[in-house]
Amino acid sequence: MTSSPFFNAHHSPIGAFASFSFGCKGPKGGLGLELSGPANENLFIGCEDSVCRGRFRAFPFYEFAGDREADFHGHISSDGDEQFESFPDSEIERVLRPCVDSWRAGDLTFRVISPVEAVPDPAGGGESELKDVLCPAVLVELTLDNTAGTFPRTVFFGYEGSDRSSGMRVLDHPQLIGVGQGLRTAVVTLDPMVAGLGWSPSDLLDLKHLYNAYFMLGPMGLLTGVVAAGETRSFKIAVCFHRAGIATAGLPTRYLYNRWFEGVDDVAKHALSRFDGLVRRAEAVDRELLEGLEPNRALSLSHAVRSYYGSTQLLEREDGRPVWVVNEGEYRMMNTSDLMADQALFELRMNPWTVRNELDLYSERYSYRDTVRYPGSLIEYPGGVAFAHDVGVTNVFSRPGCSAYEKAGLTGCFSFMTCEELTNWVICACLYVLGTGDSAWTERNLPLLEECLESLCHRDDPDPARRNGVMGLDSSKCEGGSEITTYDSLDSSLGRARGNLYLVVKWWAAFVMMERVFRQNGKDRAADEAGLQAQKSADSVVASRSADGSLPALLDDSVPARIIPAIEGLVFPLQAGMHDVLRPNGRYGSLLRTLGEHIAAVLKPGVCKFDDGAWKLSSTSDNSWLSKIYLCQYVAGELFGIRDPAADKAHWGWLMDEANVYYAWSDQMVRSKAVGSRYYPRGVTSILWTRYRQANLQGSEPTVPAAMN
Amino acid sequence: MTSSPFFNAHHSPIGAFASFSFGCKGPKGGLGLELSGPANENLFIGCEDSVCRGRFRAFPFYEFAGDREADFHGHISSDGDEQFESFPDSEIERVLRPCVDSWRAGDLTFRVISPVEAVPDPAGGGESELKDVLCPAVLVELTLDNTAGTFPRTVFFGYEGSDRSSGMRVLDHPQLIGVGQGLRTAVVTLDPMVAGLGWSPSDLLDLKHLYNAYFMLGPMGLLTGVVAAGETRSFKIAVCFHRAGIATAGLPTRYLYNRWFEGVDDVAKHALSRFDGLVRRAEAVDRELLEGLEPNRALSLSHAVRSYYGSTQLLEREDGRPVWVVNEGEYRMMNTSDLMADQALFELRMNPWTVRNELDLYSERYSYRDTVRYPGSLIEYPGGVAFAHDVGVTNVFSRPGCSAYEKAGLTGCFSFMTCEELTNWVICACLYVLGTGDSAWTERNLPLLEECLESLCHRDDPDPARRNGVMGLDSSKCEGGSEITTYDSLDSSLGRARGNLYLVVKWWAAFVMMERVFRQNGKDRAADEAGLQAQKSADSVVASRSADGSLPALLDDSVPARIIPAIEGLVFPLQAGMHDVLRPNGRYGSLLRTLGEHIAAVLKPGVCKFDDGAWKLSSTSDNSWLSKIYLCQYVAGELFGIRDPAADKAHWGWLMDEANVYYAWSDQMVRSKAVGSRYYPRGVTSILWTRYRQANLQGSEPTVPAAMN
Repeated sequence: MTSSPFFNAHHSPIGAFASFSFGCKGPKGGLGLELSGPANENLFIGCEDSVCRGRFRAFPFYEFAGDREADFHGHISSDGDEQFESFPDSEIERVLRPCVDSWRAGDLTFRVISPVEAVPDPAGGGESELKDVLCPAVLVELTLDNTAGTFPRTVFFGYEGSDRSSGMRVLDHPQLIGVGQGLRTAVVTLDPMVAGLGWSPSDLLDLKHLYNAYFMLGPMGLLTGVVAAGETRSFKIAVCFHRAGIATAGLPTRYLYNRWFEGVDDVAKHALSRFDGLVRRAEAVDRELLEGLEPNRALSLSHAVRSYYGSTQLLEREDGRPVWVVNEGEYRMMNTSDLMADQALFELRMNPWTVRNELDLYSERYSYRDTVRYPGSLIEYPGGVAFAHDVGVTNVFSRPGCSAYEKAGLTGCFSFMTCEELTNWVICACLYVLGTGDSAWTERNLPLLEECLESLCHRDDPDPARRNGVMGLDSSKCEGGSEITTYDSLDSSLGRARGNLYLVVKWWAAFVMMERVFRQNGKDRAADEAGLQAQKSADSVVASRSADGSLPALLDDSVPARIIPAIEGLVFPLQAGMHDVLRPNGRYGSLLRTLGEHIAAVLKPGVCKFDDGAWKLSSTSDNSWLSKIYLCQYVAGELFGIRDPAADKAHWGWLMDEANVYYAWSDQMVRSKAVGSRYYPRGVTSILWTRYRQANLQGSEPTVPAAMN
Repeated sequence: MTSSPFFNAHHSPIGAFASFSFGCKGPKGGLGLELSGPANENLFIGCEDSVCRGRFRAFPFYEFAGDREADFHGHISSDGDEQFESFPDSEIERVLRPCVDSWRAGDLTFRVISPVEAVPDPAGGGESELKDVLCPAVLVELTLDNTAGTFPRTVFFGYEGSDRSSGMRVLDHPQLIGVGQGLRTAVVTLDPMVAGLGWSPSDLLDLKHLYNAYFMLGPMGLLTGVVAAGETRSFKIAVCFHRAGIATAGLPTRYLYNRWFEGVDDVAKHALSRFDGLVRRAEAVDRELLEGLEPNRALSLSHAVRSYYGSTQLLEREDGRPVWVVNEGEYRMMNTSDLMADQALFELRMNPWTVRNELDLYSERYSYRDTVRYPGSLIEYPGGVAFAHDVGVTNVFSRPGCSAYEKAGLTGCFSFMTCEELTNWVICACLYVLGTGDSAWTERNLPLLEECLESLCHRDDPDPARRNGVMGLDSSKCEGGSEITTYDSLDSSLGRARGNLYLVVKWWAAFVMMERVFRQNGKDRAADEAGLQAQKSADSVVASRSADGSLPALLDDSVPARIIPAIEGLVFPLQAGMHDVLRPNGRYGSLLRTLGEHIAAVLKPGVCKFDDGAWKLSSTSDNSWLSKIYLCQYVAGELFGIRDPAADKAHWGWLMDEANVYYAWSDQMVRSKAVGSRYYPRGVTSILWTRYRQANLQGSEPTVPAAMN
């Protein structure tokens, strides 16, 4: 790794909304459950010095703060940590891959292994595989090469939990050796180690009475093991999470893993029993996933996939139905629709049923019917079905039909995203249908998809004759405000929904995909209408072309901006394998050529590139989203032959900025600084750079040759 | 109230380990569940200005920090709080009583009502009364007198929860109007109010679209109501707590209130349905409890009782057996034995079954058998049964036979308290037997009590002929260290157990009480032996008298200290109604006279008084414990006629010290500053100042006349 190893990365089980995030120096990582950021607790990972017996060295993931003991006896005692210090930075090496994060300092190595796995459909049986994949633990392998050693040396691994309402404890299970905090987190081993609590690691590294290892007032817990002189030894440790009982409000659910795991003890037992197999599997996934990727892309992908899994949450309703939730990073909004569309590109390869599950929750509980208005007018026209921005926040499901996020009376951030989310639902539904061929679901949802088509058309114009394939009316939910897009905090070049180029191309994608689905299912009238609308959207884009070949961000050219996400919508038919609609000489050839010229025209310094070579989503804003850049890089590469390794380097550089490393993978950057959407899941659009599990999607023969333009 | 009203006080339900603590300025209070201190969150309580419409005033329990909204859109927006400010300090008045805490600012009053009630024995039926007493809510009455008003005015009450893993929410129950955080806390009303979330109160006080009240990203929740011009109106609000499922490790238990309450909704419904009755009851208890107390004692008692209830926790094992736990304030150790003995003086009046329950948990799970050693020797002599210092910490029950606190190999803080805790168990058992006459329990426990007598004697000397009623050997658990007392962080005048005057008098109390219990139950041989030991303890104390009439803190006079707690042990036979052993002309007359002379000799500036008139437990340490002072004040008053109102004023002054007010009631003070044992339950020894429910104890005719010495 060329840059500093000291950046936080997630190490997460799947579907547990849990993360063992760490990597920054100081108490900046730890075992986080349902948090908006790292747990901010001390981690103690290290070993006895190879030369000075009784002297200990650790990775720098801690800071000794005030003397907690003084709260008991009112005076400061020696902290006893003179014999404890960090490895020098220069000795520390790190290799980050999607599943395995390897650290080394001298003759000590430790690896943290977390899964990237397809989650089986809980409705489909395969209980034992499901249990393996959902076990809420990540694995740690701590290895000391003491072959050159002349005395037995102690290795250690532990933490100082930061949950203010729980204390640390030594596990009291007869077979398990572990320390934990409350009932929710623990680090556990079956290897010959000693588990104990103390004020600081030294209390356990210099333990005169074994009895005192159980001193329960100690705020930190440690596992210690000994490696004999002349030997190499590994210790296998499970970092476990668990939450029992009802976990959500609004709609009562529990974590699905409660089917098999009553507490951290069960989690530890299972994870440790599967240790070697899970590690081998993780190493294989790393190889497959990163195959052929150049280093900056490999790192970006590794980092992004981790942040995604840290936000995933597989819940179960009281009737046993699963609810798949992706939490929105630092915001913790649940299944945000505009993220769902991007993340579906990842999930359809991994576990398409999660996309279906999200779509169903929206149609069941988070759809609504509205009317629409011209800007500035109080007259209401028919609208139709639409979908909320999200289904809740921080484990609180919102009221039926409502999101956590949307407010009335606004024109910017927090306004309604009615049209964008309707478009996203349609796109995800079509991606799912075309990717999986799930005919039962298609059958059930065709009527709703027809309603969606009508609702989209109503948002173009009440009068079919006046429709131009561009959103022209806002939902009356806005109460006179106007709708926004997922680029909520960008300027109007991407933030405003009405007449927006980004959204028009997404509309086009939605329409061509609906046309395909309707046609395949004998709904010719609807297919015709969708096709007609697609043509109108395409025509409107083409007609807005400026003299320099670029397209205005708002089709009415009312702002001077130029935007990269003009090409974003192309990704959906591309991933759905609809190569016919993407041919430069096909039905939408002029749209494709126009967008190709546009992207070539704007991908220039001073327009849509930053000085460091990074891509700038809008020429008039310094606010950029990495997930969207990844996506557009893929489209630009696949459809327009654009390769830009210098940009990859710049984008990885942003994540490694000193100001950003705390937040693991972040999305929204203003001039390279993460200002929002931090600790965020959406970076899995980087999966597009790979062919990993792409074959799992129907109709996904190799995509169109890059040389098409 | 003469001092500043801005000090934190608990407002707690009984047995919920929950506290609505507030009173300090700024975000220093809030809804705390299982915390070691106040919740540190914003509270918003106030009303619209009486003159300026649209301008709002609040009690100063908040601070507007950074702009959270900026995390979403990357730029700072106006905070919109120009129309929101605090009442001036000069307008704010507060009256604190044990149950009702009343605040006033102009024409707005709010009262918080929390219970002081006997908890019925869960084994004794009376489910409905139990449900009322244990309902995990406190009540708030918010009243605006707008009779002079010329426009309708808004009142509001809300909070910004500080639990990092949960978000705020609007309750979705059809009958309840409320806001909460996660599943664990909520403020709820049945009155016509609007519940909503926002970035700050202004979002809800100036609400243009009712829809936006449900904006779920808002970090604070508020209830708002309107009082018409010319009217006075009260709003009744329940501040609710709830924790479902297994709440403890080590020994799995849940909160007993889960028998009736599935969540905060149920809690709110029940509390609000009982509102008026509970308020009337609370007002009556306040009158009874404070009857005849001078103001500084009334305030100290009110404050202390609140801190006790905030630490109480009634749990239920998986087989339905209740477990009564008093958590140890900021330390959160559970049922600490040395606190148990002091708190039994309160609990025996309120709910004697809780004392029995604590004793039984100790005998069942937290007793052990040891051997004993002379200091400096490795030779082990028979010891006997003993009891751990505590039963766990932070909801983690410790291993059987072990405490959270005790460590081997020490001579000071965290060493074993074997002898002190054995003495405490005996004293509590005898208090319970003599106070309740529970013959079945007595019958069952006589063999254990005989074992305790033997174990105590073994700690005097292995050779009966050499026994002098003074502890002479340390438990071998100390592994060469030495035992300490509850005064763990004081110097050896009170901290060392062996030969300690404080402990000798407690021994005497234990022996005379055992003698009584054994005699009453036909165990004459044991009674004789206990009586013999009591006489030896008394003789040793009398024999150590110095020329000036004072007694040395260590009977061997190896330190120059003089201590007030010499008289502490007298409280137990006194509260057990054993007036015969306390008569100056009775069997222990010389002990009583000696202690009377001692206390008169030491209660002087420069010895056991601080410059401010406060009592100084040890002449050689500035470290004092208020709970013990209260207790000794009572003994000194009842038995030796000592009245010291100036000390009461100084002791209340300590609690009101700027540096201490955050921690509500605190115990351990170094020169008036709380340095440990903060936010602490033990101050209920102040109940001794009253005759409240004393009649509930058998044999407790009015205590001996004060004029006895």
